[in-house]
Amino acid sequence: MPDPVFSKIAIIGAGLIGASIARAAAEYGAAGSVVLYDMDADVRTRARTIGLGEVTDTLEAAVAEADCVFLCVPVGALATVAANVVPAMTSGTILTDVGSVKGEAAAALTAAGDGRIHLIPGHPIAGTEQSGPDAGFATLFRDAWHILTPSDDTSADYLAAVERLTLFWQRLGAKVETMDVARHDRVLAITSHLPHLIAFNIVATAFDMETVEQGEVVKYSAGGFRDFTRIAASDPVMWRDVFLTNKDAVLECLGRFSEDLAALQRAIRWGDGDMLMREFTRARTIRKAIIDAGQDSGAINFGRNPNVEPDTE
Amino acid sequence: MPDPVFSKIAIIGAGLIGASIARAAAEYGAAGSVVLYDMDADVRTRARTIGLGEVTDTLEAAVAEADCVFLCVPVGALATVAANVVPAMTSGTILTDVGSVKGEAAAALTAAGDGRIHLIPGHPIAGTEQSGPDAGFATLFRDAWHILTPSDDTSADYLAAVERLTLFWQRLGAKVETMDVARHDRVLAITSHLPHLIAFNIVATAFDMETVEQGEVVKYSAGGFRDFTRIAASDPVMWRDVFLTNKDAVLECLGRFSEDLAALQRAIRWGDGDMLMREFTRARTIRKAIIDAGQDSGAINFGRNPNVEPDTE
Ligand SMILES: NC(=O)c1ccc[n+]([C@@H]2O[C@H](COP(=O)([O-])OP(=O)(O)OC[C@H]3O[C@@H](n4cnc5c(N)ncnc54)[C@H](OP(=O)(O)O)[C@@H]3O)[C@@H](O)[C@H]2O)c1
Ligand SMILES: NC(=O)c1ccc[n+]([C@@H]2O[C@H](COP(=O)([O-])OP(=O)(O)OC[C@H]3O[C@@H](n4cnc5c(N)ncnc54)[C@H](OP(=O)(O)O)[C@@H]3O)[C@@H](O)[C@H]2O)c1
Repeated sequence: MPDPVFSKIAIIGAGLIGASIARAAAEYGAAGSVVLYDMDADVRTRARTIGLGEVTDTLEAAVAEADCVFLCVPVGALATVAANVVPAMTSGTILTDVGSVKGEAAAALTAAGDGRIHLIPGHPIAGTEQSGPDAGFATLFRDAWHILTPSDDTSADYLAAVERLTLFWQRLGAKVETMDVARHDRVLAITSHLPHLIAFNIVATAFDMETVEQGEVVKYSAGGFRDFTRIAASDPVMWRDVFLTNKDAVLECLGRFSEDLAALQRAIRWGDGDMLMREFTRARTIRKAIIDAGQDSGAINFGRNPNVEPDTE
Repeated sequence: MPDPVFSKIAIIGAGLIGASIARAAAEYGAAGSVVLYDMDADVRTRARTIGLGEVTDTLEAAVAEADCVFLCVPVGALATVAANVVPAMTSGTILTDVGSVKGEAAAALTAAGDGRIHLIPGHPIAGTEQSGPDAGFATLFRDAWHILTPSDDTSADYLAAVERLTLFWQRLGAKVETMDVARHDRVLAITSHLPHLIAFNIVATAFDMETVEQGEVVKYSAGGFRDFTRIAASDPVMWRDVFLTNKDAVLECLGRFSEDLAALQRAIRWGDGDMLMREFTRARTIRKAIIDAGQDSGAINFGRNPNVEPDTE
């Protein structure tokens, strides 16, 4: 195994993402030691029990002497956590995060910054619908994109810090890209935030239809609905924060979505089969592009065979 | 292996569903012989090459002497195909289908009926986003629901026919339910038709955003979008027919969906975090009900581990 990229990392927030970073850093030798802190005492106890790394009872103890601090808390908590973390950090070390909205994250980090620390916001395009320390696993970031949104600081020190953080994520198996904050938030609004909102919404709609019983919705969910419920099972706090902090980009996508949906609705009402064929055929082409780009598997009946259990490590 | 349920079955339409019935009937010994016909000569050639069963060049030859005929064509083609099939069938045998809209299917079968044949519409709640003869596999129906919508004929012969068809699907591993046509179409509108429409729509919206490049949408699709593209890759002809023939139930669901979405949109615009939390938390409960009902797996990172290939038999 090559030398660790950081001799000590601190992870604040031991949920799905924090626990996955802890496991991956250990598994791939990316950090000499891993120290975690979580606001929630139960989470700390659980993190100790399942052996995620050293777990401290204060934020300050976790952060002390760390070369790099990873904030893995909901986006809405970033400002407070960053403000508490920075004073306890050693000069010249790195503060990064994994928040799904980079505008808010960058603002939170910048506000907390005192000029001694390298601030490098980041976002792994990897996750599951589960949350909490038990949900973490070492291979989560393998072959996934990791987006960094560095500031425009061009000092040699800052660029070296970005390079080191890049190396860390690569060691975890990720492919690293840099991007500006606004672009990130626009791209993720359509590829992640809108899909989640739609999934949350359709689940609510299904359960409020008085003409169909809830038991029937559950029973016959294999016709498509169950795929939406998987996405809609994601952490409510995390997603509330995403929508509250990426409001403009999400509302823009939502406006487009509703406009397009109204056109499909009209085609159905007036029996315009040609328009439906055109739209549905286009969707198939796009699916092919995603499989060709290695972003999904084209295997038949993907993961749904009852005799196959995915390897969860 | 127990005795076959039917000594000969005929399958009209050798696509995903037809090919899966052919493979399953052979694998589980549910039919003594399987004969297929497809309108498309290329499909017939392919069906022969991959050994789905005997393949005939005319509809009449396939149907002759069959105990049960399965119409596995798009819903919009059912009326024509049924009208051609019935005169070639032996008296007292069964005509069924697998169409996703039972109102239309029942009407098509009834119109074609000449009083000699038992008409029993059906719908397997199982499928994938793929189509064509190569997409079929024997385990598709295992542990899946199969809905039959028998007529109100209470003659002993008809009831015996329904029982035999039930036995056939059970032999393929399915759990069989009966339901009335209108209820089926209402339940499926929300559990299957609306989810597909939404998936088709979001894919179109994503690709029409000028503010984001298509390449970026593909690249970062793992954030949620890719799950929608899987559903949206489904056969355009099949889905056009579904929306044209289950119009009222789909429009009803769509109206509700848009109303609910407008409320979420308003909550985002005005920063109403409590309302978002409430809705998102509810969605999580529903997901749990689906996993408890055995309709999905709760395994972490379901099927997405690059090192796991689902067993496609
Ligand atoms: N889930 C995904 O798919 C995904 C993907 C990419 C990025 N992200 C981002 O990753 C971050 C974490 O998400 P996650 O999925 O790992 O969530 P999670 O499993 O819910 O974990 C978050 C953890 O942070 C703790 N926490 C909350 N506020 C805190 C604070 N002020 N100080 C210390 N700890 C605090 C939570 O404790 P409690 O027990 O009190 O809640 C929880 O243990 C979010 O910013 C999210 O946007 C998530
Ligand atoms: N896919 C699913 O997930 C699913 C699930 C449950 C039920 N269903 C229902 O199953 C039925 C078949 O769907 P599928 O997914 O199997 O579609 P598919 O893979 O596209 O197969 C349909 C086959 O029927 C052929 N066909 C079309 N019109 C015909 C005609 N007039 N006479 C004879 N053959 C004809 C098609 O030939 P071409 O090559 O010319 O198109 C194609 O080979 C549909 O009614 C659908 O609603 C589908």
